[in-house]
Amino acid sequence: MERKDALTIGIAGGSGSGKTTFANKIIQYFGGDVATLNHDYYYKPFADLPLEERKKQNFDHPDAFDTDLLISDLLRLKKGEDIRRPVYSYTEFTRLPETVLVKAAPVIVVDGILIFENPKLRDLFDIKVYVDTDSDVRLVRRLMRDVKERGRSLESVFNQYLTTVKPMHETFVEPSKRYADVIVPEGGFNAVALDMVIDRIRAQIAKR
Amino acid sequence: MERKDALTIGIAGGSGSGKTTFANKIIQYFGGDVATLNHDYYYKPFADLPLEERKKQNFDHPDAFDTDLLISDLLRLKKGEDIRRPVYSYTEFTRLPETVLVKAAPVIVVDGILIFENPKLRDLFDIKVYVDTDSDVRLVRRLMRDVKERGRSLESVFNQYLTTVKPMHETFVEPSKRYADVIVPEGGFNAVALDMVIDRIRAQIAKR
Repeated sequence: MERKDALTIGIAGGSGSGKTTFANKIIQYFGGDVATLNHDYYYKPFADLPLEERKKQNFDHPDAFDTDLLISDLLRLKKGEDIRRPVYSYTEFTRLPETVLVKAAPVIVVDGILIFENPKLRDLFDIKVYVDTDSDVRLVRRLMRDVKERGRSLESVFNQYLTTVKPMHETFVEPSKRYADVIVPEGGFNAVALDMVIDRIRAQIAKR
Repeated sequence: MERKDALTIGIAGGSGSGKTTFANKIIQYFGGDVATLNHDYYYKPFADLPLEERKKQNFDHPDAFDTDLLISDLLRLKKGEDIRRPVYSYTEFTRLPETVLVKAAPVIVVDGILIFENPKLRDLFDIKVYVDTDSDVRLVRRLMRDVKERGRSLESVFNQYLTTVKPMHETFVEPSKRYADVIVPEGGFNAVALDMVIDRIRAQIAKR
């Protein structure tokens, strides 16, 4: 029996756009039928740098990611092979020694702010969804998350937002929107768009 | 047996965006399962004005449309009633005496540049698709259509484009994008987005 490559869905959009909420709702809906990867898992380890230097990297720039490794893992998943993905530590600012098993599935969802920026990576997606949310709303969400959930100061969040998040968004993330197949306003809070993507995935799973 | 209201899909976007191509591909795919309306059918007749005055109307402004009549027809179709829609003459610049039967169907597709501008109309759509295409590409398509297919002069097309099409687009059409559930770049030439909408409709038809 011919086995078709897994349907591969990329979900991009700015920080705070709602893209992860959108991806998570798909994952909840389909459970084990969906394999998921996040570009953030593939942050470069910068193992040759001391912690203080690693912290200062620009984590919103394409160069912060080991995108070649993501591409290679994604290609294997698409062909039906299980993979072990890297694990990144946001406290150590490096890759941890352990890996996590990701089982092959008929549908693969990849989420990340910059996944449409790299031409080789974006060409692997059958469906490219860009979650588009106004910058003020994205800032509010980021603030709520970083201050309330992560205990960071307002000043440090604003500083990071203005020095890296915003300029990198405007330079790399926003321009990558033009490669999207569909643009979804408000991400995970957009039930109509979510239903459309879910029905598309269900149709794909039913075909196999 | 409880009969659900028809699934109602609005497809908006600027002139030359590819929205009608997108709508037509849906219609071709589903045939008799889809009832279709176009906001253009509902241009006001301006029957009290002479032809020369009727020609001078701004056909890209919301006031050029009898949107209340479209709303009333759409409400009836949604409930499963057949309707007779008006017919507009682009040579007489008025409504013709005849009407066209539109049979009730499980899915209704409505297309028009301004269908998300009117709050009462846009609230009737279960799925609001905005077809978003760069203004230069839209201008090229409009030129090809009006000069090659309709035999108009370059000068008259540019004049209409700059005096009404472009300003009305920027004032009414583009701002209505924010009400869309999904934004589709390039319209009828976007096979991935088309597949998503088609699978959504198939799932809806299968549920009935």
